Amino acid sequence: MSEYSIGVDLGGTNLRAAAVTHDGKLMEKVAGSTDLTKGRDQVLADIARFIVQLRERHGEEKLAGVGVGIPGFIQIQKGFIVGSNNLTVLENYPVRDDIEKRLGCKVILENDANAAALGEKWMGAGRGVDDLVLLTLGTGIGGGIISGGQILHGSEGMAAELGHITVALNGNPCGCGNTGCVEKHASATAVSAMARLMLGRDMSSKEVHALAVEGNDRAKTIFSSMGTALGTALANLINIFNFPLYLLSGGMLPAWEYFAPAMLEEIRRRSFTFRNSPTRVEQATLGNEAGLYGAAYLPFLSVK
Amino acid sequence: MSEYSIGVDLGGTNLRAAAVTHDGKLMEKVAGSTDLTKGRDQVLADIARFIVQLRERHGEEKLAGVGVGIPGFIQIQKGFIVGSNNLTVLENYPVRDDIEKRLGCKVILENDANAAALGEKWMGAGRGVDDLVLLTLGTGIGGGIISGGQILHGSEGMAAELGHITVALNGNPCGCGNTGCVEKHASATAVSAMARLMLGRDMSSKEVHALAVEGNDRAKTIFSSMGTALGTALANLINIFNFPLYLLSGGMLPAWEYFAPAMLEEIRRRSFTFRNSPTRVEQATLGNEAGLYGAAYLPFLSVK
Repeated sequence: MSEYSIGVDLGGTNLRAAAVTHDGKLMEKVAGSTDLTKGRDQVLADIARFIVQLRERHGEEKLAGVGVGIPGFIQIQKGFIVGSNNLTVLENYPVRDDIEKRLGCKVILENDANAAALGEKWMGAGRGVDDLVLLTLGTGIGGGIISGGQILHGSEGMAAELGHITVALNGNPCGCGNTGCVEKHASATAVSAMARLMLGRDMSSKEVHALAVEGNDRAKTIFSSMGTALGTALANLINIFNFPLYLLSGGMLPAWEYFAPAMLEEIRRRSFTFRNSPTRVEQATLGNEAGLYGAAYLPFLSVK
Repeated sequence: MSEYSIGVDLGGTNLRAAAVTHDGKLMEKVAGSTDLTKGRDQVLADIARFIVQLRERHGEEKLAGVGVGIPGFIQIQKGFIVGSNNLTVLENYPVRDDIEKRLGCKVILENDANAAALGEKWMGAGRGVDDLVLLTLGTGIGGGIISGGQILHGSEGMAAELGHITVALNGNPCGCGNTGCVEKHASATAVSAMARLMLGRDMSSKEVHALAVEGNDRAKTIFSSMGTALGTALANLINIFNFPLYLLSGGMLPAWEYFAPAMLEEIRRRSFTFRNSPTRVEQATLGNEAGLYGAAYLPFLSVK
C-alpha cells in the first residue's frame, strides 16, 4: 500500500495544500489565497476544504496524516499559535483541535520556517544530512533547525528565531526590542532601507538587485553589506552547531552572487570551525515548495 | 546489583577520577596532577592507573563503563583528540584505543565542557531538564549543549564553541582569527586585560573582584562590561535554542553579583524569547565536580 500525507502551507496571503507520497512524490497540489478579512472561521474552513478535497481524491484509508505549516510560534502541546505577525486572527485559539474536528483526523501544526527546513532535509538540498540550519531571507529572516533528523523546537516552540541574532551592537532597531538583529541588516526590507540611505529613493530589494546587475556600485555595496551581516550570524551558528549544512532560501536568493562573497568572507574570518570542519553554506533548492514538503513530512516523521 | 561507572577528568594540570553509582552517588575520588613533561605514555599510564585502582576496589563485574573528559575537540568515531590547547601531547593519537588496551574495557572520550554540561544535567543545577546550555567562565570560555538529554556534538565534535560567539564586531582579537569573541570580553583573562586598561596594572580577575568588593568603581565597571558581553552571547543562544536553562560555571562565578545585573539587563533587551518564555539563567552548582560527574554519566547515557 502506497501511503501518502497531506501538507498545508498557510501564509499571510497564500494557502496551498499538497498530497505527497511517503517517498516524497508530489501527487497533487491545490492553491488559493488566504482571505483574512473574512475572519478566523473562514480561514479554517478553507484549510479543511483543501484537505478534504485531496483526501477524497486520493483515498482516506491511505492517508498517513495531515501537517500544517503556519507563521508564528506554535505551542506544540496545546496546538495554539502565538505571536504570528501575519495571522493574528488565528492567535490564542485551538487551531489544531478545530481543524481536527472539521476533518475527523489527526493534524500536526508546525512553524512555517521549521517546516521549510524539514522539507529541504527530506526532499531538497538537505537530503543525506540529519543536521542543518535554514535561514529564510524574505521581508524578515526566519529560521529552522534540524538536529538529528528532528525539528529543534525549544521548550515553548520558540527556538530558531535566527532573524534576531545580534550582528551589530548598535545597529538598526528591531520590533523585538533589540538593536542590530540580522533581519534588520540582511532581509529584503533591510536592503530597501539601505537603498533609501545609499541611493536616496524608495526601492524594492528586487529593484536594488536589478541595479547591481547593471553594475551600479552602490547597489553592489548594499548587497555586500547585507552579506557581511548574514556572515556574522552564520559564523555564530557554525561555531555553535558544527553542522555540515547551512541553507539559505527566500526572495533574496536571486541576489546570491552579490551577497554571497562578502558573506563567505565574513564566515571564514569569524569561524574557526568553518575553516577546520567540512561545512557547506548553500542555496536551498525547493523554493516555495519547501514548506509544503515539510508539512507533508510531519506525519511520517512523528511515526518514527 | 548496584552498578557504578568511572569518570575521569583530565586537565592541563590536574587529573582526577571517581567511581560513581548509577544513581549519582560518588563512591570514591582519586586526584593527582597531570605531568605533561613526562610525555604522552606517562599521562595515559596515569589515567589507566587511576581507573584500575578504582576498579579493583569497587569490583570489575559491576563496572558499567569508563568515561574520560578531556579539553579539546574529540573526534568521537575515531577516539582522537584534535585542537587541544593544553594537552598537545595527546593530539592526533588514538587516545581512546590506547586506554582501552591498557584496561581491557570500553572507554568513552568526551570534551571536558560537554562533560561538565552533562554532569550538571545529571546531578547539578540541570536536574529535571533535558535541554540546557552551559558556559564555563575561566581563562577562556567553553561551552556544552545538552539537547533532548544528549550532548550536541556537531558533525566533527566541534559544536558548542560558545566562547567564540561574536559580541563586538571590532572587539578584541582572538587566537581563532575572529575579533570580538565573547571569551575575549568576558573571561578571567578579559577581566585582567580590562584591569590593565582601566586600573593601569597587572591584576588577576580575583584581585579585580576583591577591588569591586571593596567598592572600587572601576573594578565594578569592568564586571559590568563583562556582564554586557556575556549577555549579548546569551541572548543569541536563547533566541536560537529557546531552552529552559542556561548555566554559568567556572572561576568567574564568585563575581556573579558584579556581572550578573548587566548580563541579565542585556539579555532582557536583546531577547524577545527571554521576555516571553520561561528562561532561567543561573549558576551551575557542581563546580569542579561537574566534569567528573559528566564523564561518569557517559557510560550510562550510551546504554539508553
